[in-house]
Amino acid sequence: MAKDPLRYVTKVDLTRPGGEQPQLHNRWHPDVPFTETIEPGETVKIECLDWTGNQIKNTDNADDLRHVDLTQIHYLSGPFNINGAEPGDCLVVEIKDVQPLERQPWGYCGVFHKENGGGFLDKFYPECAKAVFDFEGIHCTSRHIPHVKFSGLIHPGIIGTAPSYEVLEEWNARESGLKAAIQHEHETSVANLPEPKNCSPGSATGEIAAKIAKEGARTIPGRPEHGGNCDIKNLSRGSKAFFPVYVKGAKLSLGDLHFSQGDGEITFCGAIEMPGVITIQTSIIKGGMKSLSLKSPMFIPGDVPNQYGPSRYLTFEGFSVTEEGEQKFLCATTAYRQACIRAIEYLRRFGYNDYQIYLLLSSAPIEGHIAGIVDVPNACTTIGIPMDIFDFDISPMAELKKLDMGNCALVTGSDHALTYSFK
Amino acid sequence: MAKDPLRYVTKVDLTRPGGEQPQLHNRWHPDVPFTETIEPGETVKIECLDWTGNQIKNTDNADDLRHVDLTQIHYLSGPFNINGAEPGDCLVVEIKDVQPLERQPWGYCGVFHKENGGGFLDKFYPECAKAVFDFEGIHCTSRHIPHVKFSGLIHPGIIGTAPSYEVLEEWNARESGLKAAIQHEHETSVANLPEPKNCSPGSATGEIAAKIAKEGARTIPGRPEHGGNCDIKNLSRGSKAFFPVYVKGAKLSLGDLHFSQGDGEITFCGAIEMPGVITIQTSIIKGGMKSLSLKSPMFIPGDVPNQYGPSRYLTFEGFSVTEEGEQKFLCATTAYRQACIRAIEYLRRFGYNDYQIYLLLSSAPIEGHIAGIVDVPNACTTIGIPMDIFDFDISPMAELKKLDMGNCALVTGSDHALTYSFK
Amino acid sequence: MAKDPLRYVTKVDLTRPGGEQPQLHNRWHPDVPFTETIEPGETVKIECLDWTGNQIKNTDNADDLRHVDLTQIHYLSGPFNINGAEPGDCLVVEIKDVQPLERQPWGYCGVFHKENGGGFLDKFYPECAKAVFDFEGIHCTSRHIPHVKFSGLIHPGIIGTAPSYEVLEEWNARESGLKAAIQHEHETSVANLPEPKNCSPGSATGEIAAKIAKEGARTIPGRPEHGGNCDIKNLSRGSKAFFPVYVKGAKLSLGDLHFSQGDGEITFCGAIEMPGVITIQTSIIKGGMKSLSLKSPMFIPGDVPNQYGPSRYLTFEGFSVTEEGEQKFLCATTAYRQACIRAIEYLRRFGYNDYQIYLLLSSAPIEGHIAGIVDVPNACTTIGIPMDIFDFDISPMAELKKLDMGNCALVTGSDHALTYSFK
Amino acid sequence: MAKDPLRYVTKVDLTRPGGEQPQLHNRWHPDVPFTETIEPGETVKIECLDWTGNQIKNTDNADDLRHVDLTQIHYLSGPFNINGAEPGDCLVVEIKDVQPLERQPWGYCGVFHKENGGGFLDKFYPECAKAVFDFEGIHCTSRHIPHVKFSGLIHPGIIGTAPSYEVLEEWNARESGLKAAIQHEHETSVANLPEPKNCSPGSATGEIAAKIAKEGARTIPGRPEHGGNCDIKNLSRGSKAFFPVYVKGAKLSLGDLHFSQGDGEITFCGAIEMPGVITIQTSIIKGGMKSLSLKSPMFIPGDVPNQYGPSRYLTFEGFSVTEEGEQKFLCATTAYRQACIRAIEYLRRFGYNDYQIYLLLSSAPIEGHIAGIVDVPNACTTIGIPMDIFDFDISPMAELKKLDMGNCALVTGSDHALTYSFK
Repeated sequence: MAKDPLRYVTKVDLTRPGGEQPQLHNRWHPDVPFTETIEPGETVKIECLDWTGNQIKNTDNADDLRHVDLTQIHYLSGPFNINGAEPGDCLVVEIKDVQPLERQPWGYCGVFHKENGGGFLDKFYPECAKAVFDFEGIHCTSRHIPHVKFSGLIHPGIIGTAPSYEVLEEWNARESGLKAAIQHEHETSVANLPEPKNCSPGSATGEIAAKIAKEGARTIPGRPEHGGNCDIKNLSRGSKAFFPVYVKGAKLSLGDLHFSQGDGEITFCGAIEMPGVITIQTSIIKGGMKSLSLKSPMFIPGDVPNQYGPSRYLTFEGFSVTEEGEQKFLCATTAYRQACIRAIEYLRRFGYNDYQIYLLLSSAPIEGHIAGIVDVPNACTTIGIPMDIFDFDISPMAELKKLDMGNCALVTGSDHALTYSFK
Repeated sequence: MAKDPLRYVTKVDLTRPGGEQPQLHNRWHPDVPFTETIEPGETVKIECLDWTGNQIKNTDNADDLRHVDLTQIHYLSGPFNINGAEPGDCLVVEIKDVQPLERQPWGYCGVFHKENGGGFLDKFYPECAKAVFDFEGIHCTSRHIPHVKFSGLIHPGIIGTAPSYEVLEEWNARESGLKAAIQHEHETSVANLPEPKNCSPGSATGEIAAKIAKEGARTIPGRPEHGGNCDIKNLSRGSKAFFPVYVKGAKLSLGDLHFSQGDGEITFCGAIEMPGVITIQTSIIKGGMKSLSLKSPMFIPGDVPNQYGPSRYLTFEGFSVTEEGEQKFLCATTAYRQACIRAIEYLRRFGYNDYQIYLLLSSAPIEGHIAGIVDVPNACTTIGIPMDIFDFDISPMAELKKLDMGNCALVTGSDHALTYSFK
Repeated sequence: MAKDPLRYVTKVDLTRPGGEQPQLHNRWHPDVPFTETIEPGETVKIECLDWTGNQIKNTDNADDLRHVDLTQIHYLSGPFNINGAEPGDCLVVEIKDVQPLERQPWGYCGVFHKENGGGFLDKFYPECAKAVFDFEGIHCTSRHIPHVKFSGLIHPGIIGTAPSYEVLEEWNARESGLKAAIQHEHETSVANLPEPKNCSPGSATGEIAAKIAKEGARTIPGRPEHGGNCDIKNLSRGSKAFFPVYVKGAKLSLGDLHFSQGDGEITFCGAIEMPGVITIQTSIIKGGMKSLSLKSPMFIPGDVPNQYGPSRYLTFEGFSVTEEGEQKFLCATTAYRQACIRAIEYLRRFGYNDYQIYLLLSSAPIEGHIAGIVDVPNACTTIGIPMDIFDFDISPMAELKKLDMGNCALVTGSDHALTYSFK
Repeated sequence: MAKDPLRYVTKVDLTRPGGEQPQLHNRWHPDVPFTETIEPGETVKIECLDWTGNQIKNTDNADDLRHVDLTQIHYLSGPFNINGAEPGDCLVVEIKDVQPLERQPWGYCGVFHKENGGGFLDKFYPECAKAVFDFEGIHCTSRHIPHVKFSGLIHPGIIGTAPSYEVLEEWNARESGLKAAIQHEHETSVANLPEPKNCSPGSATGEIAAKIAKEGARTIPGRPEHGGNCDIKNLSRGSKAFFPVYVKGAKLSLGDLHFSQGDGEITFCGAIEMPGVITIQTSIIKGGMKSLSLKSPMFIPGDVPNQYGPSRYLTFEGFSVTEEGEQKFLCATTAYRQACIRAIEYLRRFGYNDYQIYLLLSSAPIEGHIAGIVDVPNACTTIGIPMDIFDFDISPMAELKKLDMGNCALVTGSDHALTYSFK
């Protein structure tokens, strides 16, 4: 009795732009046509492009990153018809593995320019930077961030079911509401509304394609109703995730694979982005949305994450007082930003520049916790850095050694400051 | 050669109000007099009152909680003179143990009334509730939240060094600034400014006492400069914490011990609050504020937390869209609230009411993570519930069994709703 | 409603020999009288002496250890009448805590002289040595083994139910059988048969006491039928253990508390021995011996052991070829001895002498695994040393630094070799 | 700058016997010719056959296993010339990954007939049995042992450097010494001496091949000098292993890949055996045998093993008293056998037969510890079974449910007993 190799339901081409590959799509819309049918219980393999659809190269400059076209991203594999799934059901997806492609054993983490995507700390680090990571089995290293090595907590940045028309309408209404209300207070876009330019509607054509282009929800934000671009590092190998089903067949899509990511994915292009292959098995809980009170996805993580001992994390505290000394009210976002800044200031002592640390905090298996969220007016968060990813001792008790830390990849010819002076 | 029992530098009386015990104090101010001197390297034991200074009783109603006087809280042990510590140094505190007092083997978690303290979900749960937890060795259980048992991740809610005059001034300025700016938008106090009423200045008297009463910073918020009421559950046994020193002798104070707490401490009186004894050892890194770039405390956790396998957490996702469907902009606070709501809705299916679950999420070793914080406009957070604290299977795959879950302690005669209908 | 402090069912006196304390006993026999009754569900505290009944002092020599009277050991607390337990039942014991006594914050590990107890490596290390460990909260350190600190995986070395007459007879028969068969091949005793000298029969007197003295099983070996001196380091805080019941009331006894122990407890007096207090709760599974096929104890460990990351163990391999080059046949005992020798040879490079390392491997949380036991003729075992218990880096990749390691406590005036030259 | 896919230094053919593939060999001998050169620092991929060289099929009977030719096994990949390695050095091998081959997504565990290999419990289970495991990503399941699923702790069963002539002589002398001494007491072979039949000398021919056939050490036993068939389950992904070097170029060989294995590998063909691919990187510590006192391999495990919480193991105790009631003297091998028997008796209650459980204990991530090895006359060992690998609750406290457990694969037509009645 033979056991056949697992079936691939999607293959990708690393040499062509994502927009030219019709087995992929980059909008959330109920009308994107199915690419394949998957039976509940069947385990399948799905190849995925990196989130930019092959726009980034393995180079020592960040020129490619500087000019990434952000309308040409998130070419997702799928949507898949999970046979028998109906609105109101719960779709269970077990992530049985995620791997880089043997034919591209590297990925990258990027700091996007403030005027083209930005990131969590773009006020201080508005310029572009990039770190390329090489994959060797479970490990990655980067010539752009020396003296660091870690195993991947590998996961899909994006996974979700398709919205119904009603859900899609709600998304578009509330995001355009936000844009109307607060865009004027921000320099960069606070929400990306439907945009026909560079819409990839999968295999849809004609009127359907036009409808998707006009109405389809953009993929940048995760959304409570289906998950989507949730960027949860622990949704990794062995996880069992539970999704609400809004349309017949569930129309599961996924992509944006990450070799590793820190909590927060702070640089925005913040994980170690890569093309790869994900192996999944699905099942259906009939009527599960009601019986499980399932309004957002939930999941049970797998049992093979990288495990450092609990006492191997150097942990920084952040409170909701800005770097300018302004008191915010129970703002965990501000608090987490402060924790990140504290970590950057600390890690500088070993010779890294701020952009290198920013890239590292974004891509390594950093733990970001909400500690206290009720002690007015300060929220408190923590960021824990696993000391074992460094090949030298970063503990405050250790003798200080400055090492040659080289540099991350920058835009050719750039000569901007690599360090920011916090108050 | 005898090894003497460890020295107690503070003892407390569980039968008298905190305000009558001059070895305690409840304001942050550089002039609160030292209670004892501790030599670097010496290990000492310090008794502490519970955060309300003995106001809460082991009863089956929440009447005491309803009327807690919030000006009579946080009677801290200390401040201690760490011999040789000077401004600019880093004070290292190793938390060698925290234990309940053998003479009071119980603690409590409370939901405060919205008009007297409130909490993270007071919009939905404005009433009072209480759960008493019994301690038996490493374990706790509560007759008010049946079918749950867990070991304590025991820690001080409050630990910090005294501010200098300059730091104190900054605190008062920025918090009064916030109050001036946004109090009118809030029903409850957004910041608690210096308040002479019920100030406990330790052993200070006369003019010094009056000065402390007038200027002393209140203890509710943690603050970036020194930690204070940081409520970090992982700052537990075996942790090594690093504090900036602002005044001669460091003036370390601590208290507000927790037998256990969930990330966020969401009900406000949200940990399992208890009197207890903490064992610490200190050391000093001369000039450490500069050499370590130490602006806020940092720490390395201990190696004996309760450890569930990584795959033993049922994890809920929360995004920054409010329960009313309003889109917020990258607000991790909103996102975490949504994750909490999802967990409440799920756990109801086993027969718990919302107040019981709210108390449980606040006090059990719940993991609250920041997952993604850059995908405009949605922040994504997760809340992970260790399935092993229940004596039945809460997994979505398990057969559903409703159990008799009794009730938490409520205000005598109350008949308000115990469940909130989220949209 | 008050919650009373937990009830103590045994108290011990640290100033008098164990043999003078009738709430203790040092033989396994069905007729040792109950000391107290414990109700199923009740949580109680039980004080215990150290295993030598106060014979060892906190000194810098091993003179006390050299002359320990091995007939005066293992004064166990109990036996306890677990109300309702009957032969054929399973007694469930949850170990809710184990702590040192506040009044004696230290313990010791000893190498016994080859002619008085010996140990696993007595062929190479026949002399006496001792290390005193000081307890400070969860941590211990020893002035006799510098540069090491670890948290305790604290547990009872001995815990078991009383044998029935039939079980006792079997024990005495099979152990005297062994003695008859192989004693002539050994220099030291291969089994300790019933011995009236220094028998402590608890509160029994007269004929009963005489019967116990004559027939009572000695306490050195653990035995499959009831556990007894099993010396399992992971039977620690939070464990739930399942014991066969052979006599009415179960007659549970326990003692020989260990602050910490390595797998194998290789020096014999090999854990960090201490008096202390254990907190337990019991329950009964009626007819559990049959329904659970329970012939030997089994247990589920607790969730608060010290946790080093899986990659924090330096692991040595041992095979069943003796240090003389003799090939043994699938002998895991030989293989484990070789693994221990490899670890000793390695740790010497940092300046420790062999006796210090022998004491350390015996008392620290070392992991001893059976790896392969079927590949004729070699069994393979491993011994894993947590690198984080040292305050310097013991990794083979680290730069070698020799430190001043002082010495362990030796017999006064001794000048024997502290290092053994293995082939 | 392109990053090329990793170089394969060995490929294998799954359709031809191992003995016909000259890039493989099955003897340890200094004269087996190098197959490839690997530079220190280079990461390479190496394909390996399963240990029987393709003799076992994916079937529902054990006929193939019954007649495996045990002279045709352990076709190892290599030996590799690690450039620059010289006698006296330490060869460091980092295992960066181990994976099944995409083209054969299954493996097997077998009980060998007592007259053809046998196993740890062949006295009770003398017959043949087999379980086929299907691989889906990190998980495996077996139709022959239902209701079980776990992630692989994947590793090479065999990895080692070549012996020098001196080392080889020592091996042959001591094993033939054993054979001469004790073979007459055993029914099955106690050691396998050099045997020309079916020797695969790699690419050697003529006199060299004849010499290897005559002198080459067999591969069944691991050996202290170089590791070899050590069968250490934790020598898994991310491990860094340190090997003595005896010949120029080190001549590293490896194979016998295991998807998973329990401590002890008790059925002999006891892991989940599979062909696969291993990724390694090497480095050299010059003179490391002396500076590290390296007589046997040592290693530091990786950080991505499957991690169950410490409290998720049902743990059985075993003592050195045989199943016949005979007292052995400090024999850990006997003790571990007893622990295994206790586990078998317990797991029967759910409907598994003994052969199924025997296969499961051998192949699942079971923890086998040496607990106490000094309490004469009893050694104590433990075997811990992760409860989370079952899809039902095996805890003694859970309600008992018998499930349909089917059967493992047996020899066609066999009707022997599947259960053994222990005393």
